[in-house]
Amino acid sequence: MKLPRVVIVGAGFGGIAAVKALTRAPVEVTIVDQHNFHTFSPLLYQVATAGLASEDIAPNLRGIVQRARNVEARMARVHGVDFDRHEVLVDHGVSIPYDYLILAAGAVSSDFGVPGVAEHAVPLKTLADATRVRSTVLRRFEEANTDPSLIEGGTLTFVVAGGGPTGVELCGALGELFTKVLAKDFKNLDVGRGQVVLVEMTDRLLGGFSAASQAEAKLELELRGVDVRLGVPIASVGPDKVELADGTVIPARTTVWAAGVKANPLADALGLAQATRGEIIVSPDLTVPAHPEVFVIGDLAAVQRPGGEPYPQLAPVAMQAGQHVARTIERRARGKRTKPFHYTDKGIMATIGRRSAVAELPFGIRFGGTLGWVSWLGLHLVFLIGFRNRAVVLVNWAWNYVKWDRGNRVILSDPE
Amino acid sequence: MKLPRVVIVGAGFGGIAAVKALTRAPVEVTIVDQHNFHTFSPLLYQVATAGLASEDIAPNLRGIVQRARNVEARMARVHGVDFDRHEVLVDHGVSIPYDYLILAAGAVSSDFGVPGVAEHAVPLKTLADATRVRSTVLRRFEEANTDPSLIEGGTLTFVVAGGGPTGVELCGALGELFTKVLAKDFKNLDVGRGQVVLVEMTDRLLGGFSAASQAEAKLELELRGVDVRLGVPIASVGPDKVELADGTVIPARTTVWAAGVKANPLADALGLAQATRGEIIVSPDLTVPAHPEVFVIGDLAAVQRPGGEPYPQLAPVAMQAGQHVARTIERRARGKRTKPFHYTDKGIMATIGRRSAVAELPFGIRFGGTLGWVSWLGLHLVFLIGFRNRAVVLVNWAWNYVKWDRGNRVILSDPE
Repeated sequence: MKLPRVVIVGAGFGGIAAVKALTRAPVEVTIVDQHNFHTFSPLLYQVATAGLASEDIAPNLRGIVQRARNVEARMARVHGVDFDRHEVLVDHGVSIPYDYLILAAGAVSSDFGVPGVAEHAVPLKTLADATRVRSTVLRRFEEANTDPSLIEGGTLTFVVAGGGPTGVELCGALGELFTKVLAKDFKNLDVGRGQVVLVEMTDRLLGGFSAASQAEAKLELELRGVDVRLGVPIASVGPDKVELADGTVIPARTTVWAAGVKANPLADALGLAQATRGEIIVSPDLTVPAHPEVFVIGDLAAVQRPGGEPYPQLAPVAMQAGQHVARTIERRARGKRTKPFHYTDKGIMATIGRRSAVAELPFGIRFGGTLGWVSWLGLHLVFLIGFRNRAVVLVNWAWNYVKWDRGNRVILSDPE
Repeated sequence: MKLPRVVIVGAGFGGIAAVKALTRAPVEVTIVDQHNFHTFSPLLYQVATAGLASEDIAPNLRGIVQRARNVEARMARVHGVDFDRHEVLVDHGVSIPYDYLILAAGAVSSDFGVPGVAEHAVPLKTLADATRVRSTVLRRFEEANTDPSLIEGGTLTFVVAGGGPTGVELCGALGELFTKVLAKDFKNLDVGRGQVVLVEMTDRLLGGFSAASQAEAKLELELRGVDVRLGVPIASVGPDKVELADGTVIPARTTVWAAGVKANPLADALGLAQATRGEIIVSPDLTVPAHPEVFVIGDLAAVQRPGGEPYPQLAPVAMQAGQHVARTIERRARGKRTKPFHYTDKGIMATIGRRSAVAELPFGIRFGGTLGWVSWLGLHLVFLIGFRNRAVVLVNWAWNYVKWDRGNRVILSDPE
């Protein structure tokens, strides 16, 4: 008997959770991603701030599924889906047939139409982005060191757009990088003139966290020298300045755009109903209306659930959804009915810097400071895939902590 | 009193050795490099074969000199030297004045005029090269996996040009990568069709080693499936084939060029006497004739020594020369005479793969196999700069050895 073929598009948190849950199921699985690695995106900001190397947070996809005999990985760009013929369309006119399809292609950075973002800002969403942010930041200090007169023009001013976890974590890490590491590196440069400006359009950081955590994050960032500007949107980004909606002009040659995401453009090519940010609208059981064999999970999905708010775009939501879909496919194979997906909230966390993080568990449990930070470290080590990656990250973290250093401050990418 | 200013051009083995030897001398040192890191080039082949991450072998230059108060690092491209005004000319019309100048800009890959090398071959001389080789190799397997008919056209044939240590080490590591790692990664691809062809124009590998080591290297490579072709030069490299001088055509879409080097093109811009491969001709005390305040060391130098052969292009030669020049500058400051440079042979080593290396010490002491390999590992760990780098490399080596794995098989660079 031929086993049902499951195709998973995307090797993010959702896709990997689905593939892991299917390794013992009576199905044949193909996981397709444009990269040959999984990106552990919560640590991108540490690659961007020279705490880790790119490879440390990018376990090889074939390695992840190496021991699962029923799983094959394919590196390809997915251009579309032929829902009638049950085929995923990839590069070079190749198509991959499926009986069940799990779309988990995630989200990409979105400029929300703000002028100049595409041309002049660097996003922080992919591994290549992280290397580019790191190289750009380090290069700016080299430029200022060569010609300190450039500082007036914003060479050492770094605007981070977006006060979500990515923006907060990046700003905290940049502040520490400047004061603890680069200040020792650059003996003839007043590194104190380096400035990190965090711009958030709402009036609070870390939307979704409690007011206490939001206040703690703001305080901890300010203690690290970050200039936090709340309640003002960015009007435009230029090559050497950022204009805010209130008319303020910040001379800055570097802008990192972490202000938001939209669904992977693949969603636009499918001809399915989409939500505001391009997400594919799915039923409570995560299937696409009229295509019960097609599931959408993670940041690509907008789950319609009666009376409920949309699920937050978090790794745990994607992972639980991946597991749910895997179980659903197994149930279907046995002729059972599908169940709606429910996200079990495990809590949220964000780190601000050395011995500082905020963590919020269900039932109103909240903690911060060193305890939050240690929890954050432990949890991220656990969820990082691969023993080697964990060991290398741990060595780097120990080194960074003990020596107040960032050992990966290597400019790898060429100037734009 | 103003201290003499020493400018060092290049942060390779020679430049770093000089700067370290000058940290306590009564001089002010500026070390200039186009990168913000030192490249530990003996391990480039491991980055290229996914054993290590780029950052693991690229300690930050400012970090290396952070605690030396009399040393400043500058990231800049050097375009020339004004010997009359005693100034090094860098980007943007900036010049750096010197009292003593140490030129240690090293060598670059040379195609020796073989047609097609510049367009179709990848060199393995810089950190960016190593990432590019790795990405290209892994991408070829992905391509063959998608469309096995491509294999006929050379998609899985990798020609390595040059049987020196770089070529030998790369070939051994590629052979092991294919048979031990990729064979497990690609479940539906006959990885055994992957071929490594080492082409060397002379009739032996590892010129400079003893005949016994040369034979051992050849045997060990062949045990790892490498097709070793000696005594035949490459006539041309195309996008999908390599033509040898004897008329043989090897269908191959990937060629790594490790066949030789020439002096950094900076040497051509200086108007000084040069040797056959562009090296600057220097006196036995490593100074440039007519410019006693200018020293040239390492692969950039051709030392004229009566009755002697030129020194080999090895890291230990560059390091000893850097130390010698540092001592010379100190002696000059005290009004003493300079001494000629003598290289103390510490031996040579090359590794072929797992538990296989050849090592040759002075006085005819030679060893290979596991003992050679362990010595090679230990020595390279010792000479790698930085505790963090050593720790991370050690973690990776342990992992690779125990698990027969290569944890960094991440395709980072875009296709050409």
